[in-house]
Amino acid sequence: MTTRPHTPLLDTVDTPGDLRKLDKSELRQLSDELRAEMIDAVGTTGGHLGSGLGVVELTVAIHYVFDTPTDKLVWDVGHQCYPHKIITGRRDRIRTLRQGGGLSGFTKRTESEYDPFGAAHSSTSISAALGFAVANKLQDRPGRGIAVIGDGAMSAGMAYEAMNNAEQAGNRLIVILNDNDMSIAPPVGGLSAYLARMVSSSEYLGLRSMASKIAKKLGRRVWGGLEKAEEYARGMATGGTLFEELGFYYVGPIDGHNLDHLIPVLENVRDSEQGPVLIHVVTQKGKGYAPAENSADKYHGVAKFDVVTGEQKKASGGPPAYQNVFGDTLAKLADGDPRICAITAAMPSGTGVDRFAKAHPARAFDVGIAEQHAVTFAAGLAAEGMRPFCAIYSTFLQRAYDQVVHDVAIQNLPVRFAIDRAGLVGADGCTHAGSFDVTYLATLPNMVVMAAADEAELVHMTYTAAEHDAGPIAFRYPRGNGVGVELPQTPQKLEIGKGRIVREGSKVAILSLGARLAEALKAADQLEAKGLSTTVADMRFAKPLDTALIEQLMRSHEVVVTVEEAAIGGLGAHVLTFASDSGLTDNGLKVRTMRLPDVFQDHDDPAKQYDEAGLNAPHIVDTVLTALRHNSAGVAEARA
Amino acid sequence: MTTRPHTPLLDTVDTPGDLRKLDKSELRQLSDELRAEMIDAVGTTGGHLGSGLGVVELTVAIHYVFDTPTDKLVWDVGHQCYPHKIITGRRDRIRTLRQGGGLSGFTKRTESEYDPFGAAHSSTSISAALGFAVANKLQDRPGRGIAVIGDGAMSAGMAYEAMNNAEQAGNRLIVILNDNDMSIAPPVGGLSAYLARMVSSSEYLGLRSMASKIAKKLGRRVWGGLEKAEEYARGMATGGTLFEELGFYYVGPIDGHNLDHLIPVLENVRDSEQGPVLIHVVTQKGKGYAPAENSADKYHGVAKFDVVTGEQKKASGGPPAYQNVFGDTLAKLADGDPRICAITAAMPSGTGVDRFAKAHPARAFDVGIAEQHAVTFAAGLAAEGMRPFCAIYSTFLQRAYDQVVHDVAIQNLPVRFAIDRAGLVGADGCTHAGSFDVTYLATLPNMVVMAAADEAELVHMTYTAAEHDAGPIAFRYPRGNGVGVELPQTPQKLEIGKGRIVREGSKVAILSLGARLAEALKAADQLEAKGLSTTVADMRFAKPLDTALIEQLMRSHEVVVTVEEAAIGGLGAHVLTFASDSGLTDNGLKVRTMRLPDVFQDHDDPAKQYDEAGLNAPHIVDTVLTALRHNSAGVAEARA
Repeated sequence: MTTRPHTPLLDTVDTPGDLRKLDKSELRQLSDELRAEMIDAVGTTGGHLGSGLGVVELTVAIHYVFDTPTDKLVWDVGHQCYPHKIITGRRDRIRTLRQGGGLSGFTKRTESEYDPFGAAHSSTSISAALGFAVANKLQDRPGRGIAVIGDGAMSAGMAYEAMNNAEQAGNRLIVILNDNDMSIAPPVGGLSAYLARMVSSSEYLGLRSMASKIAKKLGRRVWGGLEKAEEYARGMATGGTLFEELGFYYVGPIDGHNLDHLIPVLENVRDSEQGPVLIHVVTQKGKGYAPAENSADKYHGVAKFDVVTGEQKKASGGPPAYQNVFGDTLAKLADGDPRICAITAAMPSGTGVDRFAKAHPARAFDVGIAEQHAVTFAAGLAAEGMRPFCAIYSTFLQRAYDQVVHDVAIQNLPVRFAIDRAGLVGADGCTHAGSFDVTYLATLPNMVVMAAADEAELVHMTYTAAEHDAGPIAFRYPRGNGVGVELPQTPQKLEIGKGRIVREGSKVAILSLGARLAEALKAADQLEAKGLSTTVADMRFAKPLDTALIEQLMRSHEVVVTVEEAAIGGLGAHVLTFASDSGLTDNGLKVRTMRLPDVFQDHDDPAKQYDEAGLNAPHIVDTVLTALRHNSAGVAEARA
Repeated sequence: MTTRPHTPLLDTVDTPGDLRKLDKSELRQLSDELRAEMIDAVGTTGGHLGSGLGVVELTVAIHYVFDTPTDKLVWDVGHQCYPHKIITGRRDRIRTLRQGGGLSGFTKRTESEYDPFGAAHSSTSISAALGFAVANKLQDRPGRGIAVIGDGAMSAGMAYEAMNNAEQAGNRLIVILNDNDMSIAPPVGGLSAYLARMVSSSEYLGLRSMASKIAKKLGRRVWGGLEKAEEYARGMATGGTLFEELGFYYVGPIDGHNLDHLIPVLENVRDSEQGPVLIHVVTQKGKGYAPAENSADKYHGVAKFDVVTGEQKKASGGPPAYQNVFGDTLAKLADGDPRICAITAAMPSGTGVDRFAKAHPARAFDVGIAEQHAVTFAAGLAAEGMRPFCAIYSTFLQRAYDQVVHDVAIQNLPVRFAIDRAGLVGADGCTHAGSFDVTYLATLPNMVVMAAADEAELVHMTYTAAEHDAGPIAFRYPRGNGVGVELPQTPQKLEIGKGRIVREGSKVAILSLGARLAEALKAADQLEAKGLSTTVADMRFAKPLDTALIEQLMRSHEVVVTVEEAAIGGLGAHVLTFASDSGLTDNGLKVRTMRLPDVFQDHDDPAKQYDEAGLNAPHIVDTVLTALRHNSAGVAEARA
């Protein structure tokens, strides 16, 4: 780890300005050094490897040809931005990637002027690039919008919406379709098949035919000598109709690892007065690093690894991941219930749906990056008697909020939402945190919202959801591994809207929703040690509330604290609203709510994030003690 | 109004079963009668007229050919479903459309088995139909999914996501693209241009060429005699590549008012083993009713009207509509500020952006039905120094929730959200109510959330938003006309997070957010008459909260009531959370929250809806009186 790769050329490149001083003939070596540097860096930090390896040449070529940061380069999702970071002034911090206080694993506006738009959710790049292009056009200043988007991301609706609106940008908008036939999993659907047909039915274009094709399309103003009719005909055979029908000039497919093809194509597109242009670039995810090239997921996301062998540092055994507990439980339930089916939006392994799919392939649906469709498709399945489980991360379910409201909740259709990555998520940071789902779901009529305190609870909740045909139901659970409790042999059907008392006390009551339960119990121990008898309830449901339990605890305790891994508007808000409106707090009761703070927290170790959020045991203890000390003299006096 | 149209044939048709007993030759007359009946009915109720008129023949043909309700017919959006309702057992109630207690203006599952899926938001039909198709395939029973979707709706991302996933349904999925070159406004973008090229570049296919085309595409098993090579060639000239690239069999374009073409085409598609099929049908919005055909919006939505003249009942003058106040204010502000621009998602007149566009065409963007793109496009504009206003109804902003969170709030970009149709909206019912925006926006860090109490406040808030470059800001306002206050000559820049006391009292404090202020003031008068001195505050901001004002009022009043036209999680929840966590309520204070109830309310007159919601002046009075009577003896005893 002490021997860094030898990178004499890269050492001279701190910014794209330095890059542009190089001769074209040096870019091949620079790319090789950049690739080596990136592999070495990710070996020490872990992170997203395969995507970046696939775009090393593309990164070099774009910065070489275009005038970044005046031209706005938007990397879709951002998994592939590490090489970009290395040559845009951040090489000195590249080994802090995804570490607390270090570089973000995605593009981030506050990190660099070369990151004009933050990413992390898929398929936003064309819309954003169009915004940059149009803003500069309106303000009559230079600046193109350049979106680099993968074929998987291109399957999402918002990419299509943006393409449908792109024409107005003219030559200020360039979309580079990075076609590697992979996103996180292999992409699915008609678009993917279409791209595959295009690539397989044509040789990649050589320089001459590409030149003539571009010449024809973009106004014949380039490479004058090549404008022969027979070459046009050859160039036109390549396809791209779908994009052309939407108003783009299509160029491609070209080999995205061949700088001798990439650079002249980009130069010609740059100098063209026609647009918008879509450049179809074919790359290989994991390119240039054998262990990545040979793995099924192309080392999409990796732990720290040994650069020589590619071997990743294994996490020590420990309890199973929540996603796997979910997937296995659902698969087992489906053995005896032909109505159960599962839907994922391009996250088969992240959601555990891969395990379900192995057992019940006909009932598993990977719809691609298409959360909106996923939810309404599930609604259709539910309306026709199936028991669909939509397994979508909390943060991505935001993509389908209207469909949850309109197609599921209003119609009271029994779609089951398995919401992984609830709460803070660590290295992926705020773009992937599951902060808002309790709030945005519990405000909806007809919706049932549960949160699992541990992996055994997740088993019960999966079963409870399967059995709940009365309307929609959601259950959330954290990223990562369970707490190590024994998994139940027989799942239990929970009573809807009923919590459970986990520990009985008399002075302080902690109402916990979800996986903070362990911290609540720790806090109770510490309070008990100080002589404060403490009750801990696992509310299980944010909606419907267990009002009987709340009333009972409020009538019999001095301080009531709610705790949840969710933003304002969740359990705390619902408990307070009920208590206040029913007069339970009229004569005084110390109620405190603990929840995620009103900031977007940066990436860090999850435990540290919860420390920063103030949601660990010491914070609970502190909240209780402060409440007990608080005498509200001012209030009392003022009212007297 | 007493002379209904003469409809001898329609009188024999109560359900599609009756329809199927007719001879094909009778369907023309039936369609004419159905059209006359629909015009007469909407003349008495008002509602959506143009869309229904355009699909009369299509409605008849689909129900004639397909086995509804076993085959699941999903009308996209549902504006066009009135003829469908008339021939699916609801003719007796057709003159109750959109009236309180009457038929919904959209399809609705609880209304009829012929409405397998409720609509009202655009572009959901293909996903839902696919759900039906797949569910029946999995359960090995009959039942196709048939989606009828307009060309405007086809531009939304979720339609594309669904098409991209359609192949698995095979011949169980049929998508009928109803191309009338209109949604509510003329559609925009690349797809629309593409469709127009297809239609203009080909004669509508005659029966023979269509037959051969279908024969070729779907396996040559139909109309055997016509399978001559030259006919194939003719049929293939028509296009549809875009849909074929996504995996559909494309058929069309065909004249959607010609039953002699429609019926055989539908029959052949029905009997085909190939699929999924997309049938491109060209219709005319407003067809068969001269006043509609001749109006710019084709009588998309109409008031009650005189059937003979087409003249709509005018609403009496009165105060200006909120949307127009917004549009005019923004246009005026933009006169002096070149950074201001406006974005609408296919709702130029509904949002008032049409008025802005008239004054500043280069800075007005209608992106089509594409809310996701609209918001991220605005984020790009904001990142590059513009001052974009995204004008989207509350209910439709749900479509772009993730983009609001991820592309705007996390990046703290100053996108301005002008949120029309906040609160209950009357005849359009729960699918269009703006119930959740305060909750789903105020939970986000960086977001400022305002609500306008009247049209003068809307002027101030529009200006305040324009001047707010520190981050995102949203302001909501109701559907319909203002309350009649004078519009300010000079808009005032409101202090962020500060409310205003509108009326001073000492015993009761009403904290109002938004347009319930008038009811709060009425309630205060009634309370005063009972000897209860009442303060009324217009909070203006749900976020950031005016904590100083809240503390002051809580310390000086006996009862505090929050009032808002929003679901749980909004102002009330935020006030309670602040008050509770800061200990303001520790020693007792009667706080009550008034908000939208936890149900999806049916369509009705807005005043009646608010009565049902319990948010009018008498309910406020009642809440205060009940709180004052409440002695919480039980609580006090239990704690003693």
